Amino acid sequence: MSSPKSNKPKIVNGPGGYILQDVPHLIDYLPDLPTYPNPLQDNPAYSVVKQYFVDADDSVPEKVVVHKDGPRGIHFRRAGPRQKVYFESDEVHACIVTCGGLCPGLNTVIREIVSSLSYMYGVKRILGIDGGYRGFYAKNTIPLNSKVVNDIHKRGGTILGTSRGGHDTTKIVDSIQDRGINQVYIIGGDGTQRGASVIFEEIRRRGLKVAVVGIPKTIDNDIPVIDKSFGFDTAVEEAQRAINAAHVEAESNENGIGFVKLMGRYSGYIAMYATLASRDVDCCLIPESPFYLEGEGGLFEFVERRLKEHGHMVIVLAEGAGQDLMCKSMESTLKDASGNKLLKDVGLWLSQSIKDYFNKNKMVMNLKYIDPTYMIRAVPSNASDNVYCTLLAQSAVHGAMAGYTGYTSGLVNGRQTYIPYYRITETQNNVVITDRMWARLLSSTNQPSFLGPKDIPEEKKELPETPLLDDGAVDIPPVTKEVTK
Amino acid sequence: MSSPKSNKPKIVNGPGGYILQDVPHLIDYLPDLPTYPNPLQDNPAYSVVKQYFVDADDSVPEKVVVHKDGPRGIHFRRAGPRQKVYFESDEVHACIVTCGGLCPGLNTVIREIVSSLSYMYGVKRILGIDGGYRGFYAKNTIPLNSKVVNDIHKRGGTILGTSRGGHDTTKIVDSIQDRGINQVYIIGGDGTQRGASVIFEEIRRRGLKVAVVGIPKTIDNDIPVIDKSFGFDTAVEEAQRAINAAHVEAESNENGIGFVKLMGRYSGYIAMYATLASRDVDCCLIPESPFYLEGEGGLFEFVERRLKEHGHMVIVLAEGAGQDLMCKSMESTLKDASGNKLLKDVGLWLSQSIKDYFNKNKMVMNLKYIDPTYMIRAVPSNASDNVYCTLLAQSAVHGAMAGYTGYTSGLVNGRQTYIPYYRITETQNNVVITDRMWARLLSSTNQPSFLGPKDIPEEKKELPETPLLDDGAVDIPPVTKEVTK
Amino acid sequence: MSSPKSNKPKIVNGPGGYILQDVPHLIDYLPDLPTYPNPLQDNPAYSVVKQYFVDADDSVPEKVVVHKDGPRGIHFRRAGPRQKVYFESDEVHACIVTCGGLCPGLNTVIREIVSSLSYMYGVKRILGIDGGYRGFYAKNTIPLNSKVVNDIHKRGGTILGTSRGGHDTTKIVDSIQDRGINQVYIIGGDGTQRGASVIFEEIRRRGLKVAVVGIPKTIDNDIPVIDKSFGFDTAVEEAQRAINAAHVEAESNENGIGFVKLMGRYSGYIAMYATLASRDVDCCLIPESPFYLEGEGGLFEFVERRLKEHGHMVIVLAEGAGQDLMCKSMESTLKDASGNKLLKDVGLWLSQSIKDYFNKNKMVMNLKYIDPTYMIRAVPSNASDNVYCTLLAQSAVHGAMAGYTGYTSGLVNGRQTYIPYYRITETQNNVVITDRMWARLLSSTNQPSFLGPKDIPEEKKELPETPLLDDGAVDIPPVTKEVTK
Amino acid sequence: MSSPKSNKPKIVNGPGGYILQDVPHLIDYLPDLPTYPNPLQDNPAYSVVKQYFVDADDSVPEKVVVHKDGPRGIHFRRAGPRQKVYFESDEVHACIVTCGGLCPGLNTVIREIVSSLSYMYGVKRILGIDGGYRGFYAKNTIPLNSKVVNDIHKRGGTILGTSRGGHDTTKIVDSIQDRGINQVYIIGGDGTQRGASVIFEEIRRRGLKVAVVGIPKTIDNDIPVIDKSFGFDTAVEEAQRAINAAHVEAESNENGIGFVKLMGRYSGYIAMYATLASRDVDCCLIPESPFYLEGEGGLFEFVERRLKEHGHMVIVLAEGAGQDLMCKSMESTLKDASGNKLLKDVGLWLSQSIKDYFNKNKMVMNLKYIDPTYMIRAVPSNASDNVYCTLLAQSAVHGAMAGYTGYTSGLVNGRQTYIPYYRITETQNNVVITDRMWARLLSSTNQPSFLGPKDIPEEKKELPETPLLDDGAVDIPPVTKEVTK
Repeated sequence: MSSPKSNKPKIVNGPGGYILQDVPHLIDYLPDLPTYPNPLQDNPAYSVVKQYFVDADDSVPEKVVVHKDGPRGIHFRRAGPRQKVYFESDEVHACIVTCGGLCPGLNTVIREIVSSLSYMYGVKRILGIDGGYRGFYAKNTIPLNSKVVNDIHKRGGTILGTSRGGHDTTKIVDSIQDRGINQVYIIGGDGTQRGASVIFEEIRRRGLKVAVVGIPKTIDNDIPVIDKSFGFDTAVEEAQRAINAAHVEAESNENGIGFVKLMGRYSGYIAMYATLASRDVDCCLIPESPFYLEGEGGLFEFVERRLKEHGHMVIVLAEGAGQDLMCKSMESTLKDASGNKLLKDVGLWLSQSIKDYFNKNKMVMNLKYIDPTYMIRAVPSNASDNVYCTLLAQSAVHGAMAGYTGYTSGLVNGRQTYIPYYRITETQNNVVITDRMWARLLSSTNQPSFLGPKDIPEEKKELPETPLLDDGAVDIPPVTKEVTK
Repeated sequence: MSSPKSNKPKIVNGPGGYILQDVPHLIDYLPDLPTYPNPLQDNPAYSVVKQYFVDADDSVPEKVVVHKDGPRGIHFRRAGPRQKVYFESDEVHACIVTCGGLCPGLNTVIREIVSSLSYMYGVKRILGIDGGYRGFYAKNTIPLNSKVVNDIHKRGGTILGTSRGGHDTTKIVDSIQDRGINQVYIIGGDGTQRGASVIFEEIRRRGLKVAVVGIPKTIDNDIPVIDKSFGFDTAVEEAQRAINAAHVEAESNENGIGFVKLMGRYSGYIAMYATLASRDVDCCLIPESPFYLEGEGGLFEFVERRLKEHGHMVIVLAEGAGQDLMCKSMESTLKDASGNKLLKDVGLWLSQSIKDYFNKNKMVMNLKYIDPTYMIRAVPSNASDNVYCTLLAQSAVHGAMAGYTGYTSGLVNGRQTYIPYYRITETQNNVVITDRMWARLLSSTNQPSFLGPKDIPEEKKELPETPLLDDGAVDIPPVTKEVTK
Repeated sequence: MSSPKSNKPKIVNGPGGYILQDVPHLIDYLPDLPTYPNPLQDNPAYSVVKQYFVDADDSVPEKVVVHKDGPRGIHFRRAGPRQKVYFESDEVHACIVTCGGLCPGLNTVIREIVSSLSYMYGVKRILGIDGGYRGFYAKNTIPLNSKVVNDIHKRGGTILGTSRGGHDTTKIVDSIQDRGINQVYIIGGDGTQRGASVIFEEIRRRGLKVAVVGIPKTIDNDIPVIDKSFGFDTAVEEAQRAINAAHVEAESNENGIGFVKLMGRYSGYIAMYATLASRDVDCCLIPESPFYLEGEGGLFEFVERRLKEHGHMVIVLAEGAGQDLMCKSMESTLKDASGNKLLKDVGLWLSQSIKDYFNKNKMVMNLKYIDPTYMIRAVPSNASDNVYCTLLAQSAVHGAMAGYTGYTSGLVNGRQTYIPYYRITETQNNVVITDRMWARLLSSTNQPSFLGPKDIPEEKKELPETPLLDDGAVDIPPVTKEVTK
Repeated sequence: MSSPKSNKPKIVNGPGGYILQDVPHLIDYLPDLPTYPNPLQDNPAYSVVKQYFVDADDSVPEKVVVHKDGPRGIHFRRAGPRQKVYFESDEVHACIVTCGGLCPGLNTVIREIVSSLSYMYGVKRILGIDGGYRGFYAKNTIPLNSKVVNDIHKRGGTILGTSRGGHDTTKIVDSIQDRGINQVYIIGGDGTQRGASVIFEEIRRRGLKVAVVGIPKTIDNDIPVIDKSFGFDTAVEEAQRAINAAHVEAESNENGIGFVKLMGRYSGYIAMYATLASRDVDCCLIPESPFYLEGEGGLFEFVERRLKEHGHMVIVLAEGAGQDLMCKSMESTLKDASGNKLLKDVGLWLSQSIKDYFNKNKMVMNLKYIDPTYMIRAVPSNASDNVYCTLLAQSAVHGAMAGYTGYTSGLVNGRQTYIPYYRITETQNNVVITDRMWARLLSSTNQPSFLGPKDIPEEKKELPETPLLDDGAVDIPPVTKEVTK
């Protein structure tokens, strides 16, 4: 086990190749903290649940495709209420902040953190931080209680407001310390979680009794380890409207092309799942799968052929796809406030390129361009995401009350777990184009792969797999090798 | 391993308490069948997927909450394409049948079985059996190809028609044999899967080269082992409409009660998840949780109190709840055609009982009764269920082509697997009211549990857990003890 | 013109057979009231509208199908702002009450009355009466302002609450007088409007400066004179869901019948329009068109024949249809609180009768019964109804400010008008089964008319016509003959 | 009355200033055509409708806001079946063509023309022209019957395909003559209707027995005379999604602006009604209301002020608004194929201009741009539009069978009428910004009018009024003065 006050990963090894990648705990650096009985044991709703509290030894494997004789591999600590807690109800002063772009379900997560704290643990002091990280030091806070949040899950957006960037570790931790906050819930994407990690380190350095908890938010589903991110289901559902409309426009016009740009800066999950769910798409372009426009085997040739055969087609493009093509002659060193590469609008560029190609070749073509991005992000979460957000928020709260800190609450193989930050932030979750899910897509659209087997790097075996609902490879991903040292 | 031609479970044991509950294979009783290379290896869509084929040793654990030193437990064979297949494309003559009540996604499953057979494996002869089991011998068949099924996933219902009952093993197997069918895809609930099991046994007895494949269908999510059944997400989503309407009616009337009856003969999953997703429900009644009407702690008292406090309330009732109360004085020995107990309409009965109670006590009350059952069953599947149905259908086809038979295709801990029939049919999946998910519901509605700790049987530790998205107990369920003998 | 203080209709005659059925005015019995300039003339939004104020002579004809040489017929006073008003802003004390069943758009009407009073006329004192007529004397009131009502149009139901009955003229007018209310907005159906008429008479008798304004609300569209009632469009739209589901259930089962009960106690408009919009319905049964079950030309024979031909069918039933058949042997003298005949559930009865018929004749049949009533009533109004409700509310407010009273705000031939109460309450709007709209329906469903030409009474020429979107007969309806005497 | 073979308007005058603007008839130039009894009189569905046939004298006034002593004004011939028809069932050879952009309801109109011809009149030969006007001479035709069109009303788009331009009178009339077509149904916007008018003239010149019938299609509602165009309701409904999303995005971000571009090249009806229905919009910009960006009273100033006050705002822009601002320095002489001015994308331009302004002034602002155009156009029509399309199509068919030609089928003051082409094509329907409807909008958004009273031309009194659901002025519009000469 890692020594107290160190920021090295906490690793536990067991028989049969069992590895637990554990999360930090307040007692790692505050070893003398007192504990209290969990107030849930007096809650009437839980009185019938004898085995309500999670066993301290429960863990969940990262990989579930296993061999009879294979190693047991990496595990995560199971989330849930513990018999002993490290905070008294009156002592807790929690805050919640939402960062980055909108995503269906944000309000449900906020609502359920508040509900869990107040109904389960009797917490009375909960603050909303206004407008992202910079709200810690530049804005007023929003007092939260179960009445305020009662109906917010039926609305899209975030009642707390959000922004990109604004991370200033010192100012934020000063503000936390000044206000006497001792539980910090941070909802945001990978950049935000890296920020949470730094805040946690600073708090540990200062020796504060403050639990820092991340809840991963990314409509693109590009956060690693977890099964899927909240809001993703809703986004794929809502994307169907745009694809249906594109299909109708394409079918009703001579050589009609319905062109839909979807979210996905670095990973094409929404585009891929929306395509698989719809079955009306002829070509799906994602950042992970390079393509080219001109010449044999290129996109233009494919579009021309498909129009000749079917008279119409639907193209779905993830916003990060084709960036290299567009930017070849530009400098693209600008960064936006959250540190993402500033992306030009590849949808407008690519649809114009297709028009130009057909104009140049004097062929009739009717392209209709649809960008539903902000209509998708802003819808309220569907029922499935509502339940998911509820469990995620409850798990986050149980962990903080039990003294865990520096972790992200996440669903792994259908179970709520606590994941150390470094696993969430070190890589990105991407569609693996050598995986079966992408093959299914290619088979469904019958589009060219735009690359031959020779283009597949030999390293592909070590790429992380495509997780969502799928059956990836057995291999332990390479990252664990470093981690387990 | 079980001996050929035996119908004993095929069990494989491994180190660390590893158990594989394997599925039958044609070579169990036809040991000399020739094999062929899988045609997928020449499919351009799969050319980039070097490790496309599933490793013969891949398995998926039933339990994923584990201890460092715990036994590895039961596993299932991972689904997916195999390098060798036991059918040539031209040889395959497949049929598909849908049985029982409607469920969102039926048409998507049909579509994707047809697409997988024809696009992936070049199969040309596929028959739809018209109107459930009795369609094998009493009706004309429906020729299926990818053109016929192209748009059906956007429609509710089943294009094949369905019915309850009609299972006549001899007639069905005769019909299979007479028509020269060698792959049978059976989509239906637990009664239907028991029928599939019997058909498989008869086919094995006759020594026919016919793969019998089940695809579990139950809108109630009451099939054990699998994570959830297809259409369940869509059903919970659609149920929100009814709950929202009930909430509006309740709020707008003096002492308004919105009363929604949902599906769930034996298990209350839809009611429970719809309640958790909505947050507008004051009382959720399911078959697994007994309740009573009169007296202290009874339903009437709770309704009266909630109306006094809030002025309105919403009640959700699963159709199987309160049956005992309603039937106490009746004989209920009648069975419907599929073998389910014939249930009276408990929704009408209970809402009338509440009205009577308030009338008798001369209290004003406005109850609005909503039964959205047939509106929920008939919607097309949502995007999430569409993708799920696609993977389920593809897995089913891969297994049959690979010579497996007598299995059900199912999602276990997020992975596609092949599950032996006996695991699907021997028990029913129920909401475990001593589990945390039900505690969450009680905490959300703040309804009485209608029972005290003394009512919980000591055996509760051995009850199967609530699976969907949740984190149940670690225990190996008792059923495995018998199985592993 | 009618003399002051009389309650005789105010009729104005003009050349070419022109008749104006005018509405009462405060100066009819308070001739010395002062007037004030309309504050709208200083409103910047209206500064560009030079001809903003309605000309005092503007009127709208009741009939718009005319002959070159025909009489000009009945007209109504056009609604809209007048140059002079009879209330100062500070003087106004308005109240709003909603009565009867829910209807999409109630909240929009409430919102827009409040907005019009406060934004257009600077009114500050507006009360919501809680829970229908009895709220005037039995409950607390709800203070209303533009902030309170800001988002309510996105919710179904009524934020004021509603109830049936409770009309006690003396208590209500006492309460109005005691509270110093001088504008009363009453939203409700024909019973409610009769109540409004009585309140107006009592207020006139007492000589109070109180404007009484009705806004007709009936989801059934059974109020005469007006083009259609608000919420009707939304209801027909929402009914499509149920019909679609019924169609899917019917198609998927052997001899499937999808049976949908819709609203319509005395008039079948929703059933008729939902059928015309859907095109999936085989039989539409409404109160206005008698039918019979047994024997040649009866419903059972038709159902049997349609199932033989098509294998499935969809039946839509308005709740008031077939009452006579059901009640033949019962006394049905009971009345519900609002004075409507208490209706048994004819949907359950008729669907059971059809089942019994098929059981008796040993024919297979699968009937699925859907009653979406409370799901339809509770939805928020759609965009079209939102705009309609806005204009209706604004017209109501303009009229009261201009001193008109004892009128209903209503859309006549696409124009907002003020209609005297007696025209709204004296008859009911019904589907005229000898009219072309019903012929269109019969032609669309191809159902029997269940009656021959001999069954059509000779008086049919004098029946009021079917208004909504249709082109009825030219005849002046008989009622006008009495009125114009 | 106009003389036969002349193309002068057919005007009938009557007492009291009654004017009938009649439509052409085949016997105007083919005076000896035989007539036949209408087959509807033997149709069982119509057997109960004794007065089913429209009286030859029925007409509908254009204006319904009238004065006691005012002139009766312009009327149109009422649509509907006539007792005598000029075509035998076997003789009819009809064709249908759809031109211009997509609009909800196109498929319903096609379906109902086919249904009316076949079910009501026993017509067997109906052709679909593929892909707009040019399909008459450049493409294959699509045979239509009631089976082919059975389900098409549930899909968006047009099954016939559509295109802009392609009008070649000689080729089209040659094709009509060569194929022996004698009823031509032309669905399209004002350009298309002008084309229909020319086709009609050429057919009259050639003396062919061919009825030419227009059905006005414009999602923008910019066709004069008629109450509203089909699909408009659906479009306004669908636009709510985009506005809701824009509102959520605006509220969740610091100084958030949700910016929605809607359809409306020359008329801002969709933008205006979508704004009125939503109530979430802070600024609605339409082509009819000029505005400017810089300086006092300009758009930038207003945006800045609104953000300061509310922290967020929603802007709705009709695509034709601000064209002059954008194009000031550009040549904009290019025309697109249908003759409309080619418009640059003003939405992208204006949103960029706002961003630039805030950047220049170093103010934080988050603008989210949504263009839902193609998602709105492609949805299926809602229930209300479905019924509307049905009546429109039936009216069109009744007129052609009765020998009328050279007319447009249209709803005037809630009644189906036949309107001569010149009334449809001579002007455009625009939002009248000096009318009360626009004042309502200004009052709802509280936006500046961007102009003072001095900017209103004195001619404003003669501008046509805003029709949809509203109560415009009494004046006979100037156009009639020319027409009635």
